[in-house]
Amino acid sequence: MAMNSASAMARIAILGATGYTALELFRILSRHPTARVVAATTRQTDRPLISSIHPSLTGLFDLSCENLTPEEVGSSCDIAFCCLPHTASMEAVPKLLHAGCRVVDLSADYRLRDPASYQQWYGHQHTDAERLSQAVYGLPEIFGPLIPPASLVANPGCYTSTSILALAPLIAEGLIDPQGIVIDAKSGISGAGRTPKLSNLYSECNESVTAYSIGNHRHTPEIEQVLTDVGGQAVQVAFNPHLMPMDRGIFCTIYPRLLRSGTQAELLSLFRRYYAGQPFVRVVDHIPATKDVAYTNFCDITVRFNRDQLVVLAVIDNLIKGASGVAIQNMNLLLGLDQRTGLLGC
Amino acid sequence: MAMNSASAMARIAILGATGYTALELFRILSRHPTARVVAATTRQTDRPLISSIHPSLTGLFDLSCENLTPEEVGSSCDIAFCCLPHTASMEAVPKLLHAGCRVVDLSADYRLRDPASYQQWYGHQHTDAERLSQAVYGLPEIFGPLIPPASLVANPGCYTSTSILALAPLIAEGLIDPQGIVIDAKSGISGAGRTPKLSNLYSECNESVTAYSIGNHRHTPEIEQVLTDVGGQAVQVAFNPHLMPMDRGIFCTIYPRLLRSGTQAELLSLFRRYYAGQPFVRVVDHIPATKDVAYTNFCDITVRFNRDQLVVLAVIDNLIKGASGVAIQNMNLLLGLDQRTGLLGC
Amino acid sequence: MAMNSASAMARIAILGATGYTALELFRILSRHPTARVVAATTRQTDRPLISSIHPSLTGLFDLSCENLTPEEVGSSCDIAFCCLPHTASMEAVPKLLHAGCRVVDLSADYRLRDPASYQQWYGHQHTDAERLSQAVYGLPEIFGPLIPPASLVANPGCYTSTSILALAPLIAEGLIDPQGIVIDAKSGISGAGRTPKLSNLYSECNESVTAYSIGNHRHTPEIEQVLTDVGGQAVQVAFNPHLMPMDRGIFCTIYPRLLRSGTQAELLSLFRRYYAGQPFVRVVDHIPATKDVAYTNFCDITVRFNRDQLVVLAVIDNLIKGASGVAIQNMNLLLGLDQRTGLLGC
Amino acid sequence: MAMNSASAMARIAILGATGYTALELFRILSRHPTARVVAATTRQTDRPLISSIHPSLTGLFDLSCENLTPEEVGSSCDIAFCCLPHTASMEAVPKLLHAGCRVVDLSADYRLRDPASYQQWYGHQHTDAERLSQAVYGLPEIFGPLIPPASLVANPGCYTSTSILALAPLIAEGLIDPQGIVIDAKSGISGAGRTPKLSNLYSECNESVTAYSIGNHRHTPEIEQVLTDVGGQAVQVAFNPHLMPMDRGIFCTIYPRLLRSGTQAELLSLFRRYYAGQPFVRVVDHIPATKDVAYTNFCDITVRFNRDQLVVLAVIDNLIKGASGVAIQNMNLLLGLDQRTGLLGC
Repeated sequence: MAMNSASAMARIAILGATGYTALELFRILSRHPTARVVAATTRQTDRPLISSIHPSLTGLFDLSCENLTPEEVGSSCDIAFCCLPHTASMEAVPKLLHAGCRVVDLSADYRLRDPASYQQWYGHQHTDAERLSQAVYGLPEIFGPLIPPASLVANPGCYTSTSILALAPLIAEGLIDPQGIVIDAKSGISGAGRTPKLSNLYSECNESVTAYSIGNHRHTPEIEQVLTDVGGQAVQVAFNPHLMPMDRGIFCTIYPRLLRSGTQAELLSLFRRYYAGQPFVRVVDHIPATKDVAYTNFCDITVRFNRDQLVVLAVIDNLIKGASGVAIQNMNLLLGLDQRTGLLGC
Repeated sequence: MAMNSASAMARIAILGATGYTALELFRILSRHPTARVVAATTRQTDRPLISSIHPSLTGLFDLSCENLTPEEVGSSCDIAFCCLPHTASMEAVPKLLHAGCRVVDLSADYRLRDPASYQQWYGHQHTDAERLSQAVYGLPEIFGPLIPPASLVANPGCYTSTSILALAPLIAEGLIDPQGIVIDAKSGISGAGRTPKLSNLYSECNESVTAYSIGNHRHTPEIEQVLTDVGGQAVQVAFNPHLMPMDRGIFCTIYPRLLRSGTQAELLSLFRRYYAGQPFVRVVDHIPATKDVAYTNFCDITVRFNRDQLVVLAVIDNLIKGASGVAIQNMNLLLGLDQRTGLLGC
Repeated sequence: MAMNSASAMARIAILGATGYTALELFRILSRHPTARVVAATTRQTDRPLISSIHPSLTGLFDLSCENLTPEEVGSSCDIAFCCLPHTASMEAVPKLLHAGCRVVDLSADYRLRDPASYQQWYGHQHTDAERLSQAVYGLPEIFGPLIPPASLVANPGCYTSTSILALAPLIAEGLIDPQGIVIDAKSGISGAGRTPKLSNLYSECNESVTAYSIGNHRHTPEIEQVLTDVGGQAVQVAFNPHLMPMDRGIFCTIYPRLLRSGTQAELLSLFRRYYAGQPFVRVVDHIPATKDVAYTNFCDITVRFNRDQLVVLAVIDNLIKGASGVAIQNMNLLLGLDQRTGLLGC
Repeated sequence: MAMNSASAMARIAILGATGYTALELFRILSRHPTARVVAATTRQTDRPLISSIHPSLTGLFDLSCENLTPEEVGSSCDIAFCCLPHTASMEAVPKLLHAGCRVVDLSADYRLRDPASYQQWYGHQHTDAERLSQAVYGLPEIFGPLIPPASLVANPGCYTSTSILALAPLIAEGLIDPQGIVIDAKSGISGAGRTPKLSNLYSECNESVTAYSIGNHRHTPEIEQVLTDVGGQAVQVAFNPHLMPMDRGIFCTIYPRLLRSGTQAELLSLFRRYYAGQPFVRVVDHIPATKDVAYTNFCDITVRFNRDQLVVLAVIDNLIKGASGVAIQNMNLLLGLDQRTGLLGC
């Protein structure tokens, strides 16, 4: 599809090409004017065509998935997206960086700055702990200026982005109690990945709502770390994820305790000021639906204030703004491009 | 289907036979050994067969829906289920009672004891206010002994039942702060009824999660009234409903503030003691899914306690335990039957 | 739930208790007045409670799944339902029968009379070929009188039942060309079973329609065998299954070539005569929807005749009339009960 | 979003802006480099913002929907998309053309050349019959060269496009019997439009498959007219639409009678030759799923040939290739652009 000259093209690699976040990266990159996928990796050794793994990509990419080493990938591309599981990423990333490419890591391996926290929540010792402090947390609306010069971007978790974007203005202004913030999150099933398990079978998930990891989900420390950065004092959240019978979308309903008085209109104004100039956050008056942002990189947010209870409501598409869309946004910043390129407009 | 002798049969009427709660009453009654539907009403005047309104009932009921007056219905049946919209119910109920039948009202008209509260939340003056104090709130697990002698049972709202059952043991024991209890409720779309509106179209609801009436839903005063009865001190909740892309099911995630220390195991024991002998409440160790109770009259409840945050999780089928199943449970109690009849076992 | 005396109870075993057809058998049997599940088997050796495998059965069955041999099962029960995969069934069935119980086999192992056909379509040599001629094909609407005295009932496939019921009256009367009958079948995902595979993941199936085994699905010879029995001359069908994004339901659209002239009304009358007295076949004037029969043992059928093309439309619930419901219907006949017991009415 | 100079921009109007096809036009046009929406019409007179009608467009279009006359629209834009219901279109189109703009009509009003056929199938006399012969049928893969010079393009129906693309190569080569071609079509619910009706409510459609207009759907004469043009002899089809519980997607399973012998591989080759150079038709070896083409302008097609039965399988997204995507493809051709602009690549 590329109509631009090859010389201007950034060379892109996708490690772990068989999952949903990789598919979504391919879809977005098929529309990107100055980035070109030159390598896709898998552990399979039979060099399957990408269209045999993802039939929807037929005709869009004429590329085989190969069992390449990180060194091979790193020496032949400018930017590598790591769509590997956690622990696999921290093995590949040092080699990719050493070989000379920059990395957007979609796993959790470089999101937490504290290796002890990583060990506590993920149950593994971090094998690349010294690099944790160099990784930039890839939420452009919060850490935008840090991203362009980075070598390694830790792409945020899907629940995390939504929660942070919904709370950052309130935390930054010190308007809410930073302790005991209840986050009730609802996600579509694609967040569970493409590996077959009983819990992500159609007949188990369809026509059903359930919850999991109540109070102890791994995105908890990530939300707390970033919001603590934003507000300058320790934030503690009660994060509770639920599964909804739909492909994609996250809806976060958040119940902070307001410390000062304020009206709904004032709070909406605060959010609008905080996100002024951010192309992918839409502060809206109506209550958003996940469908409003499906297949887009938008995060829609509103607030409600009734009977002394503040509620913040925020939605994203978990595969786009929650994973591959923000990853492209980060790639654009790394490449010195307008962050909207390939994501919005033409 | 009736194989029993007609003489033992209770004569049942269903007012407002075209909606989903009426359909569900018909389905359950097709299995009930000692109740027989003798009348079904509609405002349509062409006497449609019930099977033309609800094709799934073909062969199960050989009955026409007629434009009968409440007086006609009341004089020819023992128990009338009112599946009318609010305000329509309070016109029909006095006439039904006066004609000599007993009533299970599935509308909201007789649920709030205080006519001022009714006016505040429903925007209509109550025209049968003096009867509000006589109506029994039809949640058998809480008000069981009051139901058998009643003439008028106010069948609870779907969100209400779930919320009350999930909180009653904690409120009764005084374990939680009765103020500011956050209830995050998720419902399937059938709760929105069968009247065509943009907001309940397939293409609007499918693949989407949204919220509505944040902090000001009409079930709020109902939950507060009953829990105040249970605990003996004023309860105030922040009730927040969401719509899930599925037919049926309610999932309530509730965030109370625990006043004393306690373990998860102790709290589960408390719930098990409180609901001992109740056939339709199952206190479970696992996190329930709405699918576990779909097409049943069960309410499954569990609790989680992590990082000082208590969470109560409860599920029902909104059309059964949330409407027509509990209505049959109430009917059974009115008729002096085992409350499980037609709902559980054979 | 059993309220009847144990002495009158038939002792039931379910082999392969972890799948969806087993779950559905349990659900129906929880309402059956004279059958009681006494054994459930699994290859797991840790004796899991049935409620830990199927949380929806909590409180309904206090039973562990055990790794029992067919001999142990057969000697302690009256009727065994085999919910094992094909080839596993033909190992267990001879032992069950020899131990003295009767068997309703939900696998494909005893459906085809011709062992060569079994080998051709299933790719395995049949190891119990001599018993194929003794098995009765368990479609009561066609083979009803043969079932009560049988020892071994081969429960039909889900697509098969629907296709046969939709075509039998036309074939029996010789009204249609028995060759080249096009059957376009649409099924919910539960038909794919409960074993995790990429093809039955939520995120693969949801919001998608596809087809598989076009022209070569294994239910083809089964449909042809039974319809050949019905009509007395060789029937050949082009059977083409599709997957629909829903839990349960089969919709068959069938395109026969009418050999004589006839009106739609005459054809409907023919169907009504053919199924007179059959409680589970409803010949309807309207076009049925799978939802009309969901969670029931009904098969709804109609015909349309426009521009010289006859179309037969038939729906069932694939887990009930297509598997576990008809299995209970067969069990009832084996036990000398009304075939509706536990399935319809009270 | 427009980054190009306004001078090069085609001025676009959308009549009937509240429905799903209009929404989809907006979405695609938000990415189109050289087309700019300058007017959107509705019968509402309160000038609602387009983002209040379609919240997903928030921030993408700063435009009010106005109750404009066709004359006002026609004189201020280059191309008008008519998303009006049939009969409303044939009132507006003559005025739009007279005012000087070109029209892509998404209704059925200009698809049939014969006004008698229009009257027969739509039940209305055509009030602009003389223009029927001037309208070009907007299926670029078949009538591509006729579109660039046209003033009025009749955008095809969704079922129609799929059926025609799946049959044209076989009809053009005279390989199949042109009479009695069975088309079994499955559509998502968005095809039913955005006007609330009982039949498109979530709780009616979800978890259900049904059929409608068996043998007499209005797309029948449209399919027959175009395929008759393609093959030069009268084509007659038995077209049978079904509703699937999903938002978008059409799956057509087509059963032609092959007149000559041929292999599956030869037939696939024929399709590939016929569609060589067409960017939006992908002839694939695997059986496609509607999900493969969701949110794209692709039509994926394959064939299967088993036991003497040829089956053609084709999928599209009904709102894109079946409506608004092909409408943009037509607009591109009218404007002298690459037909992929805004639809594929960057």
